[in-house]
Amino acid sequence: MKIWLTMLIATVSVNLAANELKLDNSLAYKLTESLTVEVGARIAGSAADERAVVWAEKNFAALGYDKVWREAFDMPYWQRGAASLTVNAPFHQSLVVTALGGSIATPALGIDSNVVMFDSLEQLKNADTPRVKGKIVFINHSMAKDKEGEFYGQVVGARAQGAVEAAKLGAKAIIIRSVGTSLNRFAHTGVMRYSDNVARIPAAAISVPDAIQLEKMLALQPNLTLQLTMQNKLPGIVKSHNVIAEITGSKRPDEIVLISAHLDSWDQGTGALDDGAGVGLVMAVGALIKQQGQPERTIRVVLFGNEEGGLLGAKAYAAKHAANMDKHVFASESDFGADRVWRLDSGVGEKSLAFIAELQQKLAHLDISLGNNNASGGPDVSVIKALGVPVVTLLQDGTDYFDYHHTANDTFDKVNAEALAQNLAAWLITTKAVANSQVDLRQ
Amino acid sequence: MKIWLTMLIATVSVNLAANELKLDNSLAYKLTESLTVEVGARIAGSAADERAVVWAEKNFAALGYDKVWREAFDMPYWQRGAASLTVNAPFHQSLVVTALGGSIATPALGIDSNVVMFDSLEQLKNADTPRVKGKIVFINHSMAKDKEGEFYGQVVGARAQGAVEAAKLGAKAIIIRSVGTSLNRFAHTGVMRYSDNVARIPAAAISVPDAIQLEKMLALQPNLTLQLTMQNKLPGIVKSHNVIAEITGSKRPDEIVLISAHLDSWDQGTGALDDGAGVGLVMAVGALIKQQGQPERTIRVVLFGNEEGGLLGAKAYAAKHAANMDKHVFASESDFGADRVWRLDSGVGEKSLAFIAELQQKLAHLDISLGNNNASGGPDVSVIKALGVPVVTLLQDGTDYFDYHHTANDTFDKVNAEALAQNLAAWLITTKAVANSQVDLRQ
Repeated sequence: MKIWLTMLIATVSVNLAANELKLDNSLAYKLTESLTVEVGARIAGSAADERAVVWAEKNFAALGYDKVWREAFDMPYWQRGAASLTVNAPFHQSLVVTALGGSIATPALGIDSNVVMFDSLEQLKNADTPRVKGKIVFINHSMAKDKEGEFYGQVVGARAQGAVEAAKLGAKAIIIRSVGTSLNRFAHTGVMRYSDNVARIPAAAISVPDAIQLEKMLALQPNLTLQLTMQNKLPGIVKSHNVIAEITGSKRPDEIVLISAHLDSWDQGTGALDDGAGVGLVMAVGALIKQQGQPERTIRVVLFGNEEGGLLGAKAYAAKHAANMDKHVFASESDFGADRVWRLDSGVGEKSLAFIAELQQKLAHLDISLGNNNASGGPDVSVIKALGVPVVTLLQDGTDYFDYHHTANDTFDKVNAEALAQNLAAWLITTKAVANSQVDLRQ
Repeated sequence: MKIWLTMLIATVSVNLAANELKLDNSLAYKLTESLTVEVGARIAGSAADERAVVWAEKNFAALGYDKVWREAFDMPYWQRGAASLTVNAPFHQSLVVTALGGSIATPALGIDSNVVMFDSLEQLKNADTPRVKGKIVFINHSMAKDKEGEFYGQVVGARAQGAVEAAKLGAKAIIIRSVGTSLNRFAHTGVMRYSDNVARIPAAAISVPDAIQLEKMLALQPNLTLQLTMQNKLPGIVKSHNVIAEITGSKRPDEIVLISAHLDSWDQGTGALDDGAGVGLVMAVGALIKQQGQPERTIRVVLFGNEEGGLLGAKAYAAKHAANMDKHVFASESDFGADRVWRLDSGVGEKSLAFIAELQQKLAHLDISLGNNNASGGPDVSVIKALGVPVVTLLQDGTDYFDYHHTANDTFDKVNAEALAQNLAAWLITTKAVANSQVDLRQ
C-alpha cells in the first residue's frame, strides 16, 4: 500500500506541476459571477430556480462535460411576501424583519400583541404557559464569530424549533434575533419547521441592530406591543431539479467521484457565498481536470436542488441512486462561503487514513492542515455519507461567513477572487488524487 | 492681548482639571441612545419629528437648562413610499432601491424603459439628447473613502442635480449609485432638487452592490429594461421646529455662544450618526458646563429642524434672529458622525487666531491639531456664518461615516462610546473657552 501510495503521489505531483501552467485559476470566480449576475436569487421551486437549472445545463455543456442531465423531485414551494414589524406607542418605530423560510402568513391585519423576551431557545422551553400565552415571543440569542461556525449550531435551534416551542406555550407568533454575526441591519432568513401536533404560528427574524433596539425598548416599556404582518404563500407541491454532469473515467468509468454544491439559494441576496461560490468551484474542477485528459474514475458533479428547504435534492438523489451507492467511491460538497480552505477532514475507513495524510501533504503548500476523521462531507453529502459513501470536507474559514449568510447582503462583491482560487487549487488536487487512484476509501 | 489670553487659559485649565472629577463623559452617548431608542427615525415634518421636538424639550428641562423653547417654521413635507426596481428579461432580478428625498412618485404601474449608464454627472451633462431620450438614466459614480469626506462633495452632485440634467435630455427617470463607501447592500437617500423650468422625473438610488451588478448586466445585455415604481407623497406645507435651550450667562448674558446639531434625520435608519450623536453631544455640553457653575456668556444650544431637506431650520433661525446676529459671538455645529475629533478649523477674525492657537493647545492632549481659518462651522451654522458670526469646526474623522450615512444602517450600535467621549471633552473645552472669555472672534 505504501509503495503504491508513493507512486500515486508522484504521478499527481507531476500532473499538477504541468497543469498549473495552463490552469485558469479564475474559472470558479467567473462561473460564480455568471450565476449571480445572470440568474441571481434562486429560491427552490421558483422561476429563478428553473433559470438556474438551465444556466447550469448550458454551462456544463460549454465547459466540455461529457454528460449533462437533470433529475426532478417534488417539493413544497414557499414564497416570501411583504413583511413589516412596527413598535406601537410610545415608540412608533419600524424594525427590519424578514419571514423565516416556511413560515405561514399572519392574518391580513397582522398580529398585535405584547412581547415576551427570552435569551435562548432553552429559556423559552423552560417558561411557564401564563408568561407566554397570547404574546409574541422574542428570542434574543446573540451569536459570536468563529472559524468553524460552531456558534451557528448553538443559536440556529431558535430559528428551526422556536415556532413549535413558542406555540406549545400559546404564543401568537415568534420573532428571533437574526442568526448572524454582523451589526449591519439585515435580517437573516433560513428554514423553520412546524410539528403536526402543534399550532402553526408565524415566525420571523429581525436584524441584530433591531434586536438590540427592541431589548432596550422593552427595558423602558415592558408592556409595549408589536404589530407583525407577513404575506407569505405556500402554493403547494412543485418540481425542482438536481443538475448532474460527468467527466467520464478512462479506466474505471463506473466508479463515481462525486463533488457537489447546491444550486438553490435564499431569495434575499443573490446567493453568492451560499452557494454560488461552491457551484462555480465544482463546475470548474471537472472542466479543468478534463483539460488535462480524462481522469481514471468518473468525476460526477452534482448541483443539488433545494438544500435550503431541508436537503430535499440530496434526499431525492440518495433515493434515486440507492442501488448504485456502492459505486460512489467518494463524495464532498463545498457549501461554507468563499473564504480559504484551512483544514482537511475525512470520513473514510481506517486503512485509508494514510491516503488522507498523503493528500494533506499535497495541500500543505496551500496552508491546509490535517483535521479529524469525523467529516460530514457537507450538508447534502451528509445524506449519502449516511449510506456508506466515504467523504472529505475541505473546511473553509467561516469567520466572516455569518456576516452575510441568508441575508440580502450575500452578493458577488463579497467573494474574494484570491481565496476562491485557493479553494480551486485545493479541490483540484483532492479530486484528482481520488479520481486517478484505485484507493478504496471505505477500507 | 497675550497676557490676557494666558490668564484665560490658566483659568480654563484649572476649571477643567476640577471638572474632570465629576464630569459624566458618557452623557452624550446616553442622550444619543435615548433619542434613537425612544424616537428613532424622525424625518422633518412627520409625527416622529414632533415626538423628537417633545423629547428634546423634555430632556433639556431635565438636564437643568435655564430656558427651553421651540420656534416653528413652514416646510414642504415629503413622505417616502414603497419603491421597487426590477430588471426585466432575461435576468429577472430585484435591485435594492430607495427614493431620493423630494422625488415625485412614478405612475402607479411604474416606468418601464431602457437604461443609459454614465460614469458621472459631468458625463451626463455632455450627452446628446438622442442617447438619453425616453430612457432611465443610471449614474454609476463610485466614491472612495477619506477622512474629510471630500469625495462626497465630488459625487453628491449626481444626487442633487441628476434629475434636472437627465430631464433636460428627455429621460423618464434617474437612478444613481448610492453616494456611499460601503459594499453593504443599503441604498443611500438624501435630498434632490427640481428646477421650475425642467420636467420633474422620479429619482432614486440603488445600493453599491446593485450598481456593480447592474453595470455587469448592461455589459451583457445593453438593451435590457428596468421597471421602476415609487409611491412617494408630497402632502404640502407643514410646520417643523427648531428646539432651543440656554444656560444663561452670569456676566454677559446677552452674548450668545451657539452650539448646535440637527434634530431631524432621514427616515431609513434611526439617525444615530446623522445626527443623533451631535444632538447628544451639544445637549450634554451645556448641562455639564452648568454643573460647574454658570458660564460668563450665555450658551445657546440649537437643535435645528429640517437640515436634511435643505437647511430649512437654519434659514428660519437666521431670519428670525437677524436683528440679534451681532450678539452671536460664536457658533459651531456637530454633524459628521460620532468618530473622533482630529482637527480644529476656525472662521474668525485675523486678530483672534492667537486665541484659536491657544485653544488648540488645550485640545492637543486629545490628538487634535490646528487646521485652517476657512471653517464653515457645520451645515446649518454656515447659514449664520454668512451673516458674520465667527465659527469653529471640530473636524471629525469621516473615514467610515459614508458607510452608514443616509441608510437604514445608521443605527445606535454604530456609535463608539469612547470616540463620542473624546468629542465631548473637545466640545467642553472649546465651548467653555469661548463662554468664559471676552474674546471678540470677529476681530
